[in-house]
Amino acid sequence: MGQAQKDYDKLHAIAREARHWQGVSELLAWDQETYMPQEGGEIRGEQIKMLAGLIHKERTGTKFTHALEKLIDIESGTIKADDLAPNLQAGVKAWHRDYKRETSLPLSFVEDFALLCAESQLVWRTAKKESDFNLFAPFLERIVDMCRKKADLLGYKDHPYDALLDLYEPDMSTKEVDKVFAEIKPAISSLVKSISNTHPIDDSFLFGEFDKAQQMSFSKLLLDGLGYISSRCRLDISTHPFSSSLNPFDHRITTRIDERSLMSNISSVLHEAGHALYEMGLPAEHYGSPLGQAISLGIHESQSRWWETRIGLSKPFWQHYYPFLQHHFKGKLDSIPLETFHRAINKVAPSFIRVEADEVTYPLHVALRFDMEKALIEGSLAVKDVPDAWNSKMQQLLGITPASHAEGCLQDIHWSCGAIGYFPTYALGNIFAAQLFDTFESIYPDWETRVAAGDLLFVRNWLHSSVHTHGRHYGSCELLQNITNKPFSAKPYISYLGSKYTGIYELE
Amino acid sequence: MGQAQKDYDKLHAIAREARHWQGVSELLAWDQETYMPQEGGEIRGEQIKMLAGLIHKERTGTKFTHALEKLIDIESGTIKADDLAPNLQAGVKAWHRDYKRETSLPLSFVEDFALLCAESQLVWRTAKKESDFNLFAPFLERIVDMCRKKADLLGYKDHPYDALLDLYEPDMSTKEVDKVFAEIKPAISSLVKSISNTHPIDDSFLFGEFDKAQQMSFSKLLLDGLGYISSRCRLDISTHPFSSSLNPFDHRITTRIDERSLMSNISSVLHEAGHALYEMGLPAEHYGSPLGQAISLGIHESQSRWWETRIGLSKPFWQHYYPFLQHHFKGKLDSIPLETFHRAINKVAPSFIRVEADEVTYPLHVALRFDMEKALIEGSLAVKDVPDAWNSKMQQLLGITPASHAEGCLQDIHWSCGAIGYFPTYALGNIFAAQLFDTFESIYPDWETRVAAGDLLFVRNWLHSSVHTHGRHYGSCELLQNITNKPFSAKPYISYLGSKYTGIYELE
Repeated sequence: MGQAQKDYDKLHAIAREARHWQGVSELLAWDQETYMPQEGGEIRGEQIKMLAGLIHKERTGTKFTHALEKLIDIESGTIKADDLAPNLQAGVKAWHRDYKRETSLPLSFVEDFALLCAESQLVWRTAKKESDFNLFAPFLERIVDMCRKKADLLGYKDHPYDALLDLYEPDMSTKEVDKVFAEIKPAISSLVKSISNTHPIDDSFLFGEFDKAQQMSFSKLLLDGLGYISSRCRLDISTHPFSSSLNPFDHRITTRIDERSLMSNISSVLHEAGHALYEMGLPAEHYGSPLGQAISLGIHESQSRWWETRIGLSKPFWQHYYPFLQHHFKGKLDSIPLETFHRAINKVAPSFIRVEADEVTYPLHVALRFDMEKALIEGSLAVKDVPDAWNSKMQQLLGITPASHAEGCLQDIHWSCGAIGYFPTYALGNIFAAQLFDTFESIYPDWETRVAAGDLLFVRNWLHSSVHTHGRHYGSCELLQNITNKPFSAKPYISYLGSKYTGIYELE
Repeated sequence: MGQAQKDYDKLHAIAREARHWQGVSELLAWDQETYMPQEGGEIRGEQIKMLAGLIHKERTGTKFTHALEKLIDIESGTIKADDLAPNLQAGVKAWHRDYKRETSLPLSFVEDFALLCAESQLVWRTAKKESDFNLFAPFLERIVDMCRKKADLLGYKDHPYDALLDLYEPDMSTKEVDKVFAEIKPAISSLVKSISNTHPIDDSFLFGEFDKAQQMSFSKLLLDGLGYISSRCRLDISTHPFSSSLNPFDHRITTRIDERSLMSNISSVLHEAGHALYEMGLPAEHYGSPLGQAISLGIHESQSRWWETRIGLSKPFWQHYYPFLQHHFKGKLDSIPLETFHRAINKVAPSFIRVEADEVTYPLHVALRFDMEKALIEGSLAVKDVPDAWNSKMQQLLGITPASHAEGCLQDIHWSCGAIGYFPTYALGNIFAAQLFDTFESIYPDWETRVAAGDLLFVRNWLHSSVHTHGRHYGSCELLQNITNKPFSAKPYISYLGSKYTGIYELE
């Protein structure tokens, strides 16, 4: 083994320990959302703060710095060990990038931010329950302040929002996201308008009484089909579905069970499983290094939306699963033909809650948040004006106004977690997925037949070998180029939505 | 505020942080036993090792040492700040004692021991399942070796076992425990013999089919009666019931549900709730200091056995709860009168599994383990000879021989956790409880009437003000003396067993 490889392994071992700590922190967060008794929140917040500080120290400390320096010039970012394999070189560059970012934030800032977020989440929960924005406002003030400070500490060229966006989607700038929305918004608005002139789809049979245990049982059937491994995966229930991968051998997703709604749990499970499958597909031998990490939240979201919408809302998927669904909820769907069911789950109608939005109006929800976040970070929008700004933007984009803040600006957990800059990745994920899907379709022109026969594993395997297995070897746009032979583009997405919903609504 | 109080508060703040880390470690352990996917075990072990090292460093580091030195002379143990309140002085002494113990163990030893235990637990689990002692033996070898080394590092006067016992029961020596067993064993053996000459009690109706959901529902009813607070407590299911208090606002117990057995869950819930009530009763303002800690595992066990046996196997308790039990398991107990039920749950018969043993034979199971542990630590028993030694001792004490190691020397988790020295506290707990109960009875001569009317809170309140609220202000024997006005003695225990079972079996 060459010296460079030895140096790499040493760095990896140090980073692996920091990753172990991160897994601990993720368990604390998972537990907080699933099983922690309510009163445990205050001390939990302190623990999360302590861990944030510890992880920051491990990732910026002398031990890590010395090990990193052997492989790359910290100042210039020039690789020293150029006999390393290309993927390992890419790993070193990603480590260096993270290191620069991490060292630009002082320890006290990292700890204070972690504590503020833990506290804010608790307050947000109550504020949402009581639909009381004033309760949450002082915390949102502090979060916006700290995010602005964070942007300054991290540095940026054009817009402070760039620095925050970079945390979640390293290859994208605010300007580029602006451009993407400028491209998709008119296309979507015109599609929504055409749909609004048709006869509304009846989806009333998707609402009623759907037994909780049967919903969980059906979720497990879906997870089996996706190749979930029960010895390294869990499914639990939480108010807000999420996915958390503690390490390559411990993946946990949660779902929301609403006994009045059939599809809420199903879409959550497919969505979160998509995230988990990505994490499960990362190479375990690179656990703790950038090559064992997801590229970006946009690519992550491309995986979750792939399963939730591209597969989970497709007709072939339900050709296989619909009989099982009917069997699970006897008497509820007996008289509903597959065709009717499939149209119902694809019904398009403006609605208040992002996570429950249909595929077409969904990106408009994201656009709203993106615009508001930019304004908050620029300082052109004050926190106290958030509810009004939200409601008027909602009216403008979707033609509806929420009756309460719980259904409006308090609906999402993200701001209370300090995750400003995160939302655009939700739109990008759909766009990435569409571009990937075109390639997938060209390789597997018979995919519909295979999926209709209940085979999902070839889909998963393709995602695994194309996307998952590379870790952070490539950036998101580079990966898209490699896989699809085309630069990043929103066109496949616009064209997919247009063609799918023209069919469903028999437009033109 | 005086300087001493300020110094105390500073020390407390530092110790509180270490206690937060311990709570994190406890969450990791709780999760491992309840929800962690099976394959998560390996990395979990590394995390537990890292936390053990971190906690050790926090409790022996310069920061802690300097803060402690202000209040007590580390060498001589003389309190410097004698204007501190007496309970705080006791706290400082306990801190000093812990500090001396902690500093006698090198960091590498602490980490290695934690990792070995985490690994051993996983192996033990498989070994028990497959009843294969050879699988576990090499790990037990290493655990015994490390425990012997630990005893040397900790230091002892008479017997290396003293050093290990001291970790769990600071006020007791091996010699004293020997004396206790010498006193109770003949009394119990003679009681068992008398009982064996009577007609066996029919308890067959306690076995059959008892719905899991109904068992859980009844557990919750019991916990409500004990004054469990749902906003700070949990009940989950695990293979081996346990109690874990992450902090004053987060208490978690687990139970085992065996659908073929009615009492297994009930006794587990009452037992673990007893532990949790102790932790819930510790003063929250002293969280992180010795005054917010339990005195010893023996006192802890006195609380769990109090609720499991003294209350939970008493007739007044079931006068109140039996109708609820009958209602929960309709058709199962309708024809069984309370009297018959009460005799059945108090049936005495030699059995293999300690945690399922009746009240009379229970201490013999503990005596067996105590003898074997002493021999292992002395070196007079080799690990390879453990199964034979176990079986012959079982035959000698209880007159039965287990058919498999799973029912024999592999039944308990303790050795795989490195907890050699722990078992005697199980016997001491019963003895402490009996001595306390005599005093309780003298203060509340009408306790049976009140319990029969469904009032358990006055019992809990008495335990709270007598035992829980003091934290580690007093040692176990000192506390017993304070409460009962008598020195520690096994007599109340022997007399309780004699009189109760003479009644139940109509002896003499």
